[in-house]
Amino acid sequence: MNNFNYYTPTKVVFGKDTVDKAGELVKSFGGTRVLIHYGGKSALESGLIDRVKASLDAAGIFHVELGGVVPNPHLSKVYEGIELAKENGVDFLLPVGGGSVIDSAKAIAYALYEPDEDVWDLYDHTRQSKGSYPLGAILTIAAAGSEMSDSSVITNEKTGEKRGYNSDLCRAKFAIMDPSLTVTLPDYQTMSGAVDIMMHTMERYFTHGYVPDITDEIAEGLLRTVMKHAKILHEDPSNYESRAEIMWASSISHNGLTGCGHQGSDWSSHRLEHEMGGMFDVTHGAGLAAVWPSWARYVYKEVPERFAKFAVKVMEANPDEFSSQEELAVKGIELTEEFFHSIDMPTNMKELGIEPTEEQILEMADGCARATGGSVGCAKVLYQEDMAEIYRMAR
Amino acid sequence: MNNFNYYTPTKVVFGKDTVDKAGELVKSFGGTRVLIHYGGKSALESGLIDRVKASLDAAGIFHVELGGVVPNPHLSKVYEGIELAKENGVDFLLPVGGGSVIDSAKAIAYALYEPDEDVWDLYDHTRQSKGSYPLGAILTIAAAGSEMSDSSVITNEKTGEKRGYNSDLCRAKFAIMDPSLTVTLPDYQTMSGAVDIMMHTMERYFTHGYVPDITDEIAEGLLRTVMKHAKILHEDPSNYESRAEIMWASSISHNGLTGCGHQGSDWSSHRLEHEMGGMFDVTHGAGLAAVWPSWARYVYKEVPERFAKFAVKVMEANPDEFSSQEELAVKGIELTEEFFHSIDMPTNMKELGIEPTEEQILEMADGCARATGGSVGCAKVLYQEDMAEIYRMAR
Repeated sequence: MNNFNYYTPTKVVFGKDTVDKAGELVKSFGGTRVLIHYGGKSALESGLIDRVKASLDAAGIFHVELGGVVPNPHLSKVYEGIELAKENGVDFLLPVGGGSVIDSAKAIAYALYEPDEDVWDLYDHTRQSKGSYPLGAILTIAAAGSEMSDSSVITNEKTGEKRGYNSDLCRAKFAIMDPSLTVTLPDYQTMSGAVDIMMHTMERYFTHGYVPDITDEIAEGLLRTVMKHAKILHEDPSNYESRAEIMWASSISHNGLTGCGHQGSDWSSHRLEHEMGGMFDVTHGAGLAAVWPSWARYVYKEVPERFAKFAVKVMEANPDEFSSQEELAVKGIELTEEFFHSIDMPTNMKELGIEPTEEQILEMADGCARATGGSVGCAKVLYQEDMAEIYRMAR
Repeated sequence: MNNFNYYTPTKVVFGKDTVDKAGELVKSFGGTRVLIHYGGKSALESGLIDRVKASLDAAGIFHVELGGVVPNPHLSKVYEGIELAKENGVDFLLPVGGGSVIDSAKAIAYALYEPDEDVWDLYDHTRQSKGSYPLGAILTIAAAGSEMSDSSVITNEKTGEKRGYNSDLCRAKFAIMDPSLTVTLPDYQTMSGAVDIMMHTMERYFTHGYVPDITDEIAEGLLRTVMKHAKILHEDPSNYESRAEIMWASSISHNGLTGCGHQGSDWSSHRLEHEMGGMFDVTHGAGLAAVWPSWARYVYKEVPERFAKFAVKVMEANPDEFSSQEELAVKGIELTEEFFHSIDMPTNMKELGIEPTEEQILEMADGCARATGGSVGCAKVLYQEDMAEIYRMAR
């Protein structure tokens, strides 16, 4: 087993009506002046923001608010949040939303700690953060896992660059997770979320060398759980238990647990999708579904034993029906595509609704190579020409 | 799914040579004057304590030390540690050992925060803690899970009472976990540890009502992992990978993860064993192995579906060979006994080496009832007469 660190300080408060604990939780972590950060109108119209404000008022906590965060959250909104927070002496960030809203709040939290620096430097990887203002999350979309992860991803909408920054400094102090808040999500969002959750574990799963049994057991169990309950929600969106299973899986899938003690995670599919998201503004999980099968076919021969194990333990292929590990590996990829189709997710870019030209493919490959310092991947290290080829396969 | 909280702020630093990070970790969590707390001579003679001191010296951190913590750690040693810590202005506890040492340090840490109170009040449940001094653990025995848990257990050796106290306040700031430190443990200690780890999950597993799939998947995967690697270590004690699998499982098994979202944990076997440990000073994990089969036979009809699932998913019984859930449940108990025997663990008190008289059984049942406020259990609520009957069955 490889040495590893595991650090998940986020206090999870999970279940029905936990939103009403927002005020006391902010207070218990020392917050006195809060920026409530959110996305579209649904958070307002559903009464959720009013409920959050009532909880803060009851705890005697000052608050201002900033909505309008979009999927693939924009740097300009981050800058707007920084200014508003400074003007109001904000000392605690309270995102109410999914990964985009939480990531936007994380960027604001970094910026407030170092007010004389440009926060984009972090995402452009020209500087490391020295600290972050505290943040608590109220989750309304199970997908990104940002509520427990060390990650945030921001899009510079002027340049089309979508970039991530990872640091323990931005881990949320608390996460309020009420699955019933996700019941009104459109099916496409819910299923995209399920794919995103799966991919956070799958990016860690396909690696070289010794993978601890305990890490594999957790990863495989999590993937089986998400697939089972995504299928249930595709038929019955109001199923609370399935909403809860998927919401809790979203946090575990990206808090580090499913990658403990192995040699390294891959993240190629995420990096490839980031460029698609930067150029075409696609839904992240659906974008991952569209690129993963091509990535998998491009790399599986490097770690056939991992793909074969995935086929058996996660996709329930019968190993006795295959004469080689490689055949079994391919079957696992095919079964993953079948699963994606069964929940109306794409398996290529055309099904996703985008048709990049060769020029755009070269541009995405160039962007991906620049964003990754020239290469990415663990199962197989990908360079710019590999990236372009996977984009072509995924057309 | 039931509402739940999940809070594991402990920073895990896992792997070879991580002991040398002790100084920098204490410093990063604000410690300046440290009490190193440990058990027997092996920590000294192996050079481990010297290595810890060197790391603290390199970070410029003052330290005093107190050894002599015994299994089922004594209240008198806790009092001794409190005095030593007060005399030396200690502001950070650094236990180096297994659950007993960490639990003793937790008691000292509680006491230092409220210096005018008797810390035994917490364990006697006549008072709640208001806070705790910070603590980091260096783990040398994989068993109790105290390095990430909210729990500590102290024995008042004058009265023979073994009592636990649970609070998030005592969760370790960090846990240094180097599996190679456990390689020299006697087989009996290693196997007792494996049983203890399994029991932390099994106590959570046998419950009523909806159990989340994700929680069951993690629990079952963890149990399979521990059984596999306990068997390997029983033959090959120096196997690093198996040491690592079991050490990481020890933390996950008791940090709360294997009980998220279900109706409640049982803990009857632990409570029954506490009285055995208080009276006879047995090794905790072996004591659990000696009492669990009798507990299981006494209660399985209350939740046959849980025992049947356990039989299939963990003990790999073939459900097609059984005509009822109850038969399958009994098979699971038998297979657990077979597993315990396969690693030379007892399945009753005689095999454990103790033969309590009827009077002693009544005394243990009385103690257990008093310590639990009259009853304990979730799969089945046990009262004093039930406790006595299980002790009789386990003779």
